[in-house]
Amino acid sequence: MKKQVSIKDIAKLSNVSTATVSRVLNDNGRFSEETRKKVLDVVKKYGYSTNSVAKTLREQKSHTIGMIVPDISNEFFSSLITQIESYFFDRGISTIICNTNKDADKEKAYLKSLDAKLVDGLICISGQKELDETQLSRDIPIVCIDRKPKVSSNIAIIGSDHFQGGYTATKLLINKGCKRILLLTKDNNTTSSNERIDGYKKALKDSHVEVDSALIIRASSKKMSKFEIAQKAIEDAIAKGLKFDGIFATNDWLAYGAVQTLKKNKILVPDEVKIVGFDDDSISKYTSPSITTIHQEVTDIAEKAANVLYQQMSKSDMQIKEHYISVATRLIERETT
Amino acid sequence: MKKQVSIKDIAKLSNVSTATVSRVLNDNGRFSEETRKKVLDVVKKYGYSTNSVAKTLREQKSHTIGMIVPDISNEFFSSLITQIESYFFDRGISTIICNTNKDADKEKAYLKSLDAKLVDGLICISGQKELDETQLSRDIPIVCIDRKPKVSSNIAIIGSDHFQGGYTATKLLINKGCKRILLLTKDNNTTSSNERIDGYKKALKDSHVEVDSALIIRASSKKMSKFEIAQKAIEDAIAKGLKFDGIFATNDWLAYGAVQTLKKNKILVPDEVKIVGFDDDSISKYTSPSITTIHQEVTDIAEKAANVLYQQMSKSDMQIKEHYISVATRLIERETT
Repeated sequence: MKKQVSIKDIAKLSNVSTATVSRVLNDNGRFSEETRKKVLDVVKKYGYSTNSVAKTLREQKSHTIGMIVPDISNEFFSSLITQIESYFFDRGISTIICNTNKDADKEKAYLKSLDAKLVDGLICISGQKELDETQLSRDIPIVCIDRKPKVSSNIAIIGSDHFQGGYTATKLLINKGCKRILLLTKDNNTTSSNERIDGYKKALKDSHVEVDSALIIRASSKKMSKFEIAQKAIEDAIAKGLKFDGIFATNDWLAYGAVQTLKKNKILVPDEVKIVGFDDDSISKYTSPSITTIHQEVTDIAEKAANVLYQQMSKSDMQIKEHYISVATRLIERETT
Repeated sequence: MKKQVSIKDIAKLSNVSTATVSRVLNDNGRFSEETRKKVLDVVKKYGYSTNSVAKTLREQKSHTIGMIVPDISNEFFSSLITQIESYFFDRGISTIICNTNKDADKEKAYLKSLDAKLVDGLICISGQKELDETQLSRDIPIVCIDRKPKVSSNIAIIGSDHFQGGYTATKLLINKGCKRILLLTKDNNTTSSNERIDGYKKALKDSHVEVDSALIIRASSKKMSKFEIAQKAIEDAIAKGLKFDGIFATNDWLAYGAVQTLKKNKILVPDEVKIVGFDDDSISKYTSPSITTIHQEVTDIAEKAANVLYQQMSKSDMQIKEHYISVATRLIERETT
C-alpha cells in the first residue's frame, strides 16, 4: 500500500505553498506552468488521491448515489437494493447504502452525511414517517419507494399498489367462503401497511361484510421476530376464543408464523382457516403448505426508480414527468387458500 | 431545499477571489478578519456545505468507514452489518455499505471508490478470493471477516471456527448412528465453506469412516436459490440410487431444501435420514421439523471486528495485537437429528 501524502507534504516536497498546491489540484487561479509541473510530478510520485474528494469539491459531482434503507434484512428491500445498485454500477455510478434500522435519528444523520458527501442523487426506501428532505442543503434528485416526502412536490414516488394488493387478497378469501377474516399486521405505521389495510377494509365493504375491529390485530414487539409476533398473536386469538376462518397477513413471515401456529393447534389450513400473505418472499414459496401471497414486481419497481433518478441526474432541468408511479401487484395462489 | 452554491458563487457574492474563499474555508493562509467575516456571512446565508468534503480534504479524515459485503440478502451478513453499523454510529462514525453481489470487478471498483472517499477504515466480509488490499492507495486499518487478505500481515482476520463447526456437525451425525453422510455445499469456494468441509472430513477420519467422494456434492447454479439447489441435488441423489443416512449441509437454506425434498419423497427425517445445517438462520428455527444447526456467534464477531477496527482507527500506531481471532461455534440440536 502506498502511504497517503497530505497537501502539506506535497507543498513541502514541491517547495510551494499549500494554497498553490490547492490551486493546481483544482486547476483554479494563477500559477506558472513550471509550478504546475513541479506539483503534479510530486502528486504522481507520491500518489495523492485527487481523483475523488478534490474532484468532487471542484465539480460538485461525486458519481455516487445514496440509498436510505430501513432494514436490509428484509428480502424485498435487499432485492431492490441489489437491482438498483447494478443499474447504476453499469453506468459508472457507485451506490452507498445506509441502513437506518428504522431509527429516526439515524436517518437524519445519514441524510446529512450523504448530503455532505455530495451524492448526486438519493433513493429512499420505505419508512415510518414522511421523508424530511429539508435536511438536505442541496437540490438533488430524490426518488422515494413506498414513501412520501414531507414537503417537495418535485420528488418521484414509486411503489406497489398496496391498496389493490390488500383488496385482492381479501377478495380471494371472501370468494373462497371466508366470513370472518383476521387482519394480521405489524404495528409499524408505514404507508405500505396502511394502504394494504385500507384495501382489506374496502374489499369487506364491497362484499357487505362488516369491518370488525376485534379482527384487526396490530401486533408489535421490538424484541420478537415477525414469526414470533404472529405466533403470539394467533395463540392469543385462539386462547381468547376469537372465531376466524381466514387470515390476511400484511407480510409473508407473519403469514408463515400464523400457518405454523395453526398447525400446532391442530387447526387445518386451508380447510378450517385460509391464509394469504404479502411480498412473495422465499418463505412463502418454499414452505409446506406453500403460502398464497401478493407478489410485488420488485424488478419493475427497481428499474423504474433507477430510471427516473438517472434521468433526473442527467438533466439540468429537474422537473419530473410523473410524481407518482404505481406498480400493480399480482396474486399468486398456493396451498393455503 | 436550499440551492447549493459553489465556491465561485461565494467568491462573487463576497467580492473576493475563489482562492481567498478556499483559504477562509480551510482556515489556511493569510486573509484579513474583515474578509473572513464577509466570506463566512455569505456561506452562512447560502448554506455552502463545508462540513464534509472540504473538511475531509483538509483533515484527511471522513469519520466514515466502508463495508464490503458479497450479498446483503444473506441473513448472517445482514445481521453482521446491522450490528457493526450501530457500534460505529454510537461513536459518531457513519458506515457506507457496498454490495458486490460476489462480482470481482464490482469489488475492485468499490474498493477504489471507498479509498477515494477517504474512508477511515474498512471491513470486508467474506468473498471468493483473497482481499486485494493493494487496490488501496492509503494505509488505512482493515478488518476481514471470514476472509484472508492477499498480501498484508497487518490486517486483522476475524471469523467463526468453521472447521470446528463442520467437525461438530459431522461428529453428531456419526454419534447418532449415521454411516453414510452426504455433504451438501454450494460450489462457491469461500474460505468458510472450505473449512467446514475440512471439518467434515476430519470427523469422518477420526471415526475411521472413509471419505467417499461420491457423497460430497458441490452443487451450483447461478439462477437457482439455495433451496432449489438443494432440492435438485437431493432429487438427483435419490434418482441415482445414492445411499445415505445423514446430511451435513454447509448452510441452513440448503438443509431446509434437503428436508423438504426428502419429505416429498416420503423419506422420514430424522428416522431414515438425519440432517445438520449451518448458521442458525431463522428458517432453521421456525420450520417444522426444526433443523439442527451450527450457530455462529454473530454478535460476538460483529463486536470484535468493530472493536479491533475502532482501536486501530484511534491509534496512530497501526500494529495489531492479534492477526487471527477465531470465534467458537455452538451446536444447536433440534428435530432433524
